[in-house]
Amino acid sequence: MTTRKSFGSDNHAGAHKAVLRMMSLANEGDAHAYGDDPWTERVARDLCGLSGARAAYFVFNGTAANVLGLSLMLRPYEAVICAETAHLNVDECGATERLLGSKLLAVATPDGKLTPDLVATRLGGRNDEHRAQPRAVCITQVTELGTCYSLAELRVLREFCQGHDLRLYIDGARLANAVAHLDCTVADIAAQADVLSFGGTKNGGVAAEAVLVMAEDLLGAVPFQRKQLLQLASKMRFLAAQFAGLLEDQIWLRNAVHSNLMAQRLATGLGDLPGVSVVQAVQSNAVFADLDSRISGPLQHDWGFYVWDDQQHTVRLMAAFDTAPDDIDAFVAAAREASSSRV
Amino acid sequence: MTTRKSFGSDNHAGAHKAVLRMMSLANEGDAHAYGDDPWTERVARDLCGLSGARAAYFVFNGTAANVLGLSLMLRPYEAVICAETAHLNVDECGATERLLGSKLLAVATPDGKLTPDLVATRLGGRNDEHRAQPRAVCITQVTELGTCYSLAELRVLREFCQGHDLRLYIDGARLANAVAHLDCTVADIAAQADVLSFGGTKNGGVAAEAVLVMAEDLLGAVPFQRKQLLQLASKMRFLAAQFAGLLEDQIWLRNAVHSNLMAQRLATGLGDLPGVSVVQAVQSNAVFADLDSRISGPLQHDWGFYVWDDQQHTVRLMAAFDTAPDDIDAFVAAAREASSSRV
Amino acid sequence: MTTRKSFGSDNHAGAHKAVLRMMSLANEGDAHAYGDDPWTERVARDLCGLSGARAAYFVFNGTAANVLGLSLMLRPYEAVICAETAHLNVDECGATERLLGSKLLAVATPDGKLTPDLVATRLGGRNDEHRAQPRAVCITQVTELGTCYSLAELRVLREFCQGHDLRLYIDGARLANAVAHLDCTVADIAAQADVLSFGGTKNGGVAAEAVLVMAEDLLGAVPFQRKQLLQLASKMRFLAAQFAGLLEDQIWLRNAVHSNLMAQRLATGLGDLPGVSVVQAVQSNAVFADLDSRISGPLQHDWGFYVWDDQQHTVRLMAAFDTAPDDIDAFVAAAREASSSRV
Amino acid sequence: MTTRKSFGSDNHAGAHKAVLRMMSLANEGDAHAYGDDPWTERVARDLCGLSGARAAYFVFNGTAANVLGLSLMLRPYEAVICAETAHLNVDECGATERLLGSKLLAVATPDGKLTPDLVATRLGGRNDEHRAQPRAVCITQVTELGTCYSLAELRVLREFCQGHDLRLYIDGARLANAVAHLDCTVADIAAQADVLSFGGTKNGGVAAEAVLVMAEDLLGAVPFQRKQLLQLASKMRFLAAQFAGLLEDQIWLRNAVHSNLMAQRLATGLGDLPGVSVVQAVQSNAVFADLDSRISGPLQHDWGFYVWDDQQHTVRLMAAFDTAPDDIDAFVAAAREASSSRV
Repeated sequence: MTTRKSFGSDNHAGAHKAVLRMMSLANEGDAHAYGDDPWTERVARDLCGLSGARAAYFVFNGTAANVLGLSLMLRPYEAVICAETAHLNVDECGATERLLGSKLLAVATPDGKLTPDLVATRLGGRNDEHRAQPRAVCITQVTELGTCYSLAELRVLREFCQGHDLRLYIDGARLANAVAHLDCTVADIAAQADVLSFGGTKNGGVAAEAVLVMAEDLLGAVPFQRKQLLQLASKMRFLAAQFAGLLEDQIWLRNAVHSNLMAQRLATGLGDLPGVSVVQAVQSNAVFADLDSRISGPLQHDWGFYVWDDQQHTVRLMAAFDTAPDDIDAFVAAAREASSSRV
Repeated sequence: MTTRKSFGSDNHAGAHKAVLRMMSLANEGDAHAYGDDPWTERVARDLCGLSGARAAYFVFNGTAANVLGLSLMLRPYEAVICAETAHLNVDECGATERLLGSKLLAVATPDGKLTPDLVATRLGGRNDEHRAQPRAVCITQVTELGTCYSLAELRVLREFCQGHDLRLYIDGARLANAVAHLDCTVADIAAQADVLSFGGTKNGGVAAEAVLVMAEDLLGAVPFQRKQLLQLASKMRFLAAQFAGLLEDQIWLRNAVHSNLMAQRLATGLGDLPGVSVVQAVQSNAVFADLDSRISGPLQHDWGFYVWDDQQHTVRLMAAFDTAPDDIDAFVAAAREASSSRV
Repeated sequence: MTTRKSFGSDNHAGAHKAVLRMMSLANEGDAHAYGDDPWTERVARDLCGLSGARAAYFVFNGTAANVLGLSLMLRPYEAVICAETAHLNVDECGATERLLGSKLLAVATPDGKLTPDLVATRLGGRNDEHRAQPRAVCITQVTELGTCYSLAELRVLREFCQGHDLRLYIDGARLANAVAHLDCTVADIAAQADVLSFGGTKNGGVAAEAVLVMAEDLLGAVPFQRKQLLQLASKMRFLAAQFAGLLEDQIWLRNAVHSNLMAQRLATGLGDLPGVSVVQAVQSNAVFADLDSRISGPLQHDWGFYVWDDQQHTVRLMAAFDTAPDDIDAFVAAAREASSSRV
Repeated sequence: MTTRKSFGSDNHAGAHKAVLRMMSLANEGDAHAYGDDPWTERVARDLCGLSGARAAYFVFNGTAANVLGLSLMLRPYEAVICAETAHLNVDECGATERLLGSKLLAVATPDGKLTPDLVATRLGGRNDEHRAQPRAVCITQVTELGTCYSLAELRVLREFCQGHDLRLYIDGARLANAVAHLDCTVADIAAQADVLSFGGTKNGGVAAEAVLVMAEDLLGAVPFQRKQLLQLASKMRFLAAQFAGLLEDQIWLRNAVHSNLMAQRLATGLGDLPGVSVVQAVQSNAVFADLDSRISGPLQHDWGFYVWDDQQHTVRLMAAFDTAPDDIDAFVAAAREASSSRV
């Protein structure tokens, strides 16, 4: 492994020290298992306070949060409308289809964001028994392309869903970065969803995500779905403690503000280089850029990041909570050098 | 929560300090996600060395380990023969049925242990398309009743399976306790299985189990099944680190030897009390005992443990890696007092 | 194939001539597909009239009727309580588990019939997320052992279900025989169920069963579940026509009365033979009898029937709508001869 | 219902008289259930002879044939590449996703036909555990747009599949029409598939499709998958008899030749009308045409057919085995009148 900072993913980073410290604090004496313990109760309550949720549940990873959240809304003949780029659609090995039986109705988008018009293109065939019935809309906030829905966009989408008998689920693996970008509260976003996830892992956790249930009528099934979907931790306090660490002193938000800032610094540094063009709005901790192959070659040799699209030479560069300004500057310098030496 | 030691479950205990220490050590710098990191590689290799497995994979909990292990062996029309008391059958909310589609064929046992004769009772209907086809046998070692299969019993069962075209899966949520009791190696037990789990959580981990694949032909599907079954950790190094902590200085074995010893001390202490009878062989860290209701009443008031069978007044008392002799002695003293004061 | 009448199953018989005649009548001109045709509308209405159902749907076979019926009641973490002998449990290759994800909680019974007390033995663990949650009771009327629930027994069971938040599904693959035996109406039985099947195939159909939905709140999902569960016939009129044939002149009932009578004649003929004992009440078109091996040997050589239980030498003898008194008498004569010549 | 011939679907037609006659012939005496009868054995053998299949199995409808066929090839983490217009993708209510757990990877096509290049666009992510793994290609022959793959196209696609570790499944709901169009044998097409369906229902059957298994290694699972997927008929002889009727005197082929010819007559009649343009090659019994709204209005008032695409005013006109030249001529005359009277 290189000692250079990875731009490959925010999950290449380790855990925030507050997270590990809180796990150590939670490791005192016995506790009842499966969530019937004071840590879980307190942290779930805090998350409800933060988001306005009726209940908060911990699971192990983001794919699980998505499947659990959607399990509350769907019967197997009901379908999920999502962006073609949705993690649900491309990066979860078909977990939703297998575990819920539900079809995904994916829509191409320019920026990873659904709109009422785009959702409407997949609403055909309602009440036709030959068609999987659209029942939920899944959006990602921050999207997989690093973009954010504005609060106004969320409200419009939510109203459309309510007007069309559709539930709204938000995959919030990077929700903190959206809150930071929009300078809003978690509750501002959560209010538009029936269920959402609030990602802990990429924000500095070890392995913990919260599922926040906003809609009262969806609560009853959660414990059973969580257990049957392999997400019930016996020593639950250690999942709660990770969030306790992130919630302490608003570390979750400070981590997000910081990584967003690092992405801005990166975009700014790259933005005026010949052979580089930033291709998505930088509204979180990600920068998507098209790189001239004479630039991407040397950079790929020395640095870790993903080539998002081979054809377009698009790369994804992710900042994490522990990315330092120096890391950014070093990367930009390398890019600048590659840019200037191409002929 | 009482400050008295819980006898409710070995997962009421926290994590061993070596586990948390190792997680802190693993928290240095970046690492590739999803298991492509040095911690995961090393610890998986160590587990293979210990067990003779072809490969070792980390998952989040015991139910997941069971479903993943069985997923490698079964098509949905194939069934699993297990004991009626199997965790798989009674404590996993029907996860196997839902996630694999497979039927469980449960057999009543006196002691939680399957024998060739018991397995044979569920082998009817082979090649009959109306019947779910028996294809795997799932045993638990240590069983849910605290008993252990001897190595000879395992060999006989394995031979029966091989002679009847049945795969053998071992749920090893408490495998360490079996190794301690039998004074054998992990490999001695693992050699009899096609796939087995090796439990980390109850042994002193935070949330980590290993799935050990012995049969070469079952390897290919593991990464995909693990991901699709919601068990792929992004920051995998922290799961590996938990096992690194347990493997260091054979802590996993020392923890198991200790908790087994505590159970023996408990059984010895309770064994001669009027109104108490130990009803299963004490071969691990569990004591199953029938308690006169005048004894169980006062004990339940002050101590945490499970009533296993309401009708028979059977209780389960579990020792953990951190149960102290004084904890045992205090419990025995309380039981003795209740026993002597009942009239 | 022997020219002797088969006692193997009522599905060894062909179709009643009225069924084929009505299929020919339905074969006139075009009709809209998928049930939007006059035959389907009329026959479904007739079935609703007969049973008091809110809606009636046709499917291809009995296993499908059971899975579709239960699909309306269950989420995957919910379980079905049934008799160990239930077709659902032993003869459907695990279809319920695979297609619905639901666990079956099977109960041993002496006569194939559930009682409130037997159901109560499987109600443990409610609200415990580790346990599949009992949500439906599935009974078979006529049972797989040829016995019938009395109307009083049905009412008691239904009340128990209503008092314990359990739905009641009736597998009515041989419902006509129960109606004949009880001398009641279809509605008398149907009134106790949330959903039931009404078997056409064994009664003289080609391949058609009706699913009768009694509970208003379960209606909405039927078309989608039926399609997704592979049960939507395009030329639906031909399924409806089969029931039209059976409903004409109450052929369904006359067929059932007749086959029940044949079973009675058989039981009477066998009842006093040495080495033969009828072991279940004869309340339909089935006779279950233990045969001395010196009797079963010769009979098996010449006649078709199932050995139900190898250990007990129990055989099942089924009469069909087209079993003639002479068929019965010939079989009884053969049994009598075998009985008298055993040494 | 109108007395005008429906152009809505070939399943608006009834059954061919030979089919019903053969069902009556099959209705003689008893027969073993579930396919162990002479009709099933003979007809399955005949189908194998016709196609070169290793085994032929009957199921109730086309969706079931597709799911059963694919069930033989796929584990739940494996995906199916298909055209966006595939019946599997749009008209089966998500049955594949629910029943097999598998993801569909759909590709837009101009004419309903996949090519190696189009398949290749969905082959990304192989061996990446985050992605559902492409494992089967599903094509429809005749396609949902009425077009046919040439034998050369099939061979090229098959070779591509073999070179890329992909199984090939052919949805042959209208296979007979393809054989008629290509003037080839069933075996010519079947030879390119691992498994295919051979549609009986639309060709003049009541409700019967055959699943033809070409690949030896896929045979073992069929009986169990068929039963568990709710497709095992007890009185199987009546499904076999439907195919016996169609196979007699090559009625299946004559029906297909005829309906193809009717479609040609229709296309010829419509082809030169102002305001009408035929938009897909007419290679089967379907005509796809864009109609000026002043033409489609009057036609829709009087005739039954589907509007395929509201935006483009595309309609689908299907001929059936019993469509008469007069039916075509009447429709063309009506279209001509509407065409000439538009302003």
